[in-house]
Amino acid sequence: MTRKKLDTLNCSMAQSLDLIGEWWTILILREAFFGTRRFEDFLQNLGIARNILTTRLRKLCDSGILKRVPIKEGARRQDYRLTEMGHGLLPILIALSHWGDKWVQKKGAPVKFTETATGKEIREMAILSQDGRTLRAREMLLMPGPGADEATRKRLLVLREVLELRIRESKNKER
Amino acid sequence: MTRKKLDTLNCSMAQSLDLIGEWWTILILREAFFGTRRFEDFLQNLGIARNILTTRLRKLCDSGILKRVPIKEGARRQDYRLTEMGHGLLPILIALSHWGDKWVQKKGAPVKFTETATGKEIREMAILSQDGRTLRAREMLLMPGPGADEATRKRLLVLREVLELRIRESKNKER
Repeated sequence: MTRKKLDTLNCSMAQSLDLIGEWWTILILREAFFGTRRFEDFLQNLGIARNILTTRLRKLCDSGILKRVPIKEGARRQDYRLTEMGHGLLPILIALSHWGDKWVQKKGAPVKFTETATGKEIREMAILSQDGRTLRAREMLLMPGPGADEATRKRLLVLREVLELRIRESKNKER
Repeated sequence: MTRKKLDTLNCSMAQSLDLIGEWWTILILREAFFGTRRFEDFLQNLGIARNILTTRLRKLCDSGILKRVPIKEGARRQDYRLTEMGHGLLPILIALSHWGDKWVQKKGAPVKFTETATGKEIREMAILSQDGRTLRAREMLLMPGPGADEATRKRLLVLREVLELRIRESKNKER
């Protein structure tokens, strides 16, 4: 599947990945969250080729995830900072990190995220109801949102029918 | 950067992406969460080439994210189900989805996730302290975990020094 085709899907997961899913991009974002700002520091910390870094940083600026900021007022040299849109990516990065800690790492987490004020680890990323209960996939429904196109609406209708059928089946088994 | 090199990084984000970051893989996982189980249904819903689907499903089974289950007791035909490890990916997929809804979609969310029992939308994915407050990047520290190697420990030490310096600088500016 080409990136272009993914781009046209009526799906926020696919479109988010289309912006941030490249290996280098995610590692650049990790650096930005670590506090790296200067081109030369990205270059050194990542061990990436100069031209690849240039392209990726430009793309991240163009899509609004990073912005260029003069290093001092009136300075010509600029460094790279996360925008609000960029900061919004942190839950994705931390969810990736927690999952890897739990399921991939053999020696346990390389890095723990703690709250500065309390020194306690942050909560494990989880899906929560409005009143804070952890939800599993089977406790959720997929509903069309304001941006759903006709194909998405049809698909979601079929999905709900399949789901209801399975719930009935598993209830019958329990009897 | 080749996948092999990414594989050796002492970083859970990178290693998680190494398992799930391919476009087709994430869309296969999305289907699995939607309730798709049979090879032919994946094929039809995704519009993917048969050989690509076969390879990706095998890889997901090999890494423990999906498992093959006989469609009935004693049946030869098998379908594909998410393992517990696979179910653990849902917070990542929903975090991707929420971010895309907010920052990429022009017409609003194509799909909303609601709790079946209450009909209410789930909470927006966020980073939480142990007592449930939403945290921003600047309120967190990165600490070495049990799986940190020497290079990670050194890097985290440097990061904390940079962070403390910036906090002092911004306090000086406020005066």
